[in-house]
Amino acid sequence: MDKLSFPTEVVIFEVGPRDGLQNQREFIPTDKKVELINKLVAAGCKKIEVTSFVNPKWVPQMRDAKEVCARIERREGVVYSALIPNLKGLELALEAGLQEVVTIISASESHNKKNVNRSISQSLKEIEEINRIASENNVRVRSYIATAFGCPIEGDVPEEKVIDIALALEESGSYEISLGDTTGMANPIKAFELPKKLFKRLKHATLAVHYHQADGMEFANILASLQAGVPVFDGAAGGLGGCPYAPGATGNVATEILVEMFNRMGIKTGIDLNLIKECGRFAKSICNSCITN
Amino acid sequence: MDKLSFPTEVVIFEVGPRDGLQNQREFIPTDKKVELINKLVAAGCKKIEVTSFVNPKWVPQMRDAKEVCARIERREGVVYSALIPNLKGLELALEAGLQEVVTIISASESHNKKNVNRSISQSLKEIEEINRIASENNVRVRSYIATAFGCPIEGDVPEEKVIDIALALEESGSYEISLGDTTGMANPIKAFELPKKLFKRLKHATLAVHYHQADGMEFANILASLQAGVPVFDGAAGGLGGCPYAPGATGNVATEILVEMFNRMGIKTGIDLNLIKECGRFAKSICNSCITN
Repeated sequence: MDKLSFPTEVVIFEVGPRDGLQNQREFIPTDKKVELINKLVAAGCKKIEVTSFVNPKWVPQMRDAKEVCARIERREGVVYSALIPNLKGLELALEAGLQEVVTIISASESHNKKNVNRSISQSLKEIEEINRIASENNVRVRSYIATAFGCPIEGDVPEEKVIDIALALEESGSYEISLGDTTGMANPIKAFELPKKLFKRLKHATLAVHYHQADGMEFANILASLQAGVPVFDGAAGGLGGCPYAPGATGNVATEILVEMFNRMGIKTGIDLNLIKECGRFAKSICNSCITN
Repeated sequence: MDKLSFPTEVVIFEVGPRDGLQNQREFIPTDKKVELINKLVAAGCKKIEVTSFVNPKWVPQMRDAKEVCARIERREGVVYSALIPNLKGLELALEAGLQEVVTIISASESHNKKNVNRSISQSLKEIEEINRIASENNVRVRSYIATAFGCPIEGDVPEEKVIDIALALEESGSYEISLGDTTGMANPIKAFELPKKLFKRLKHATLAVHYHQADGMEFANILASLQAGVPVFDGAAGGLGGCPYAPGATGNVATEILVEMFNRMGIKTGIDLNLIKECGRFAKSICNSCITN
């Protein structure tokens, strides 16, 4: 091999307004959330997870989900998504007029139970139903597989488990599967081999990776997944994320560093580096208790 | 390509006691430097740049170079090196009984002038003389090429320039060439292709890479160089380095994160992860004004 091989163009899926902000201690005013989302779109982001429709008792930061969706600019060509933990969330997302919803399931039983209080098979059934209703409403479903590279409770997660879940999600109708390294346990070998194996098994669903910070090692994982041919990378402006109450949960990969690395490699993202850096600074500035690791 | 390909064993060249400490504002007591070096050896480091023999007027932090060399434990199988900027430095290193010295030259004329106040051809001549005298004294010479992946003054540095310098260094007798990304300008393509090209041209010199922090992107570069077959990686415990007076100069890659990534990939380093993490904490604790970026 004389040259590294990788896609010449990738999509950045921006999760900052949801995954970056959801665990911030202080409530961030709706105005600021709307401003962040509009700035991200102005920087060139085409796919944004703007909020989540989740019980405000569990995630009070996202209690303004409906307002956020009502107040953001809706630009043509931009996909505005929201995380939904269940059918109730789907209902609210449909009312808010979103084109896409995002589901979450863990590859580890213990983490799935802790995260969404369901078994994996219960979650899969619910996501099937979500896909059915979403499809009737012309809404697309994106699906996260959390702890895809390792679980803070169970340790190693067998690749076959992740593959089975991914295939079930595709079968349900999810158009994209995003492999989440929830607590930064991946390594470049897994980051290369798991997508490679999935590409052989998936029929039409696209594949994304969702890395969290791991002292910089996340960028080795990103390069490895890129070499495996992964075309979609999740990031959060400012590297926000993590949970002030859960020391194991680190921030997301910073979108502006992703864009910088791709720029240096000549890979197109459609995002303006200076504007996304400004989004990163703005995102950090609106978080009083931001965890950026 | 179904699997990433890389060496199953690598050498870590620890530069913390020199590159990590040299620019710290407050003088670090000799005792602490000696303790750090002994701890690094206890953690399994086999190659350590312990100090530099440089004019104390320019680098006051290293004014105890002779004492450091006199007081560290000398364990068999461990190579203790020192950076030397010139023939005078070599003389002092020989007096201190070191088995190895390290020279530095930049691939960019402007940076070389600024760094060592010589033209590249003057530097090459001096390194040739250093190699001649070192060889007579059974001392090995390792050679850095700074700004090998880009120069903060000149910008892009042509690969042919780096290759020519590397070949001249090898011709002079240097046994190892370490490619320095002095201000974090590398990207994975260069980090892969430059070593690949050098492997084809070098006859016997080994190749190392010396990355500085670049918001995590350095780990993508490390993975790329690893895939190119580079067998030696420079690191500084605690990620120390950079210069409090030069904002462009970032800290070194932290040795403990290097070891963690290699461990996760099953690559042997011979270094104990917990002990090297402890070295990282200790290194940071002895720096009052440490820049860890």
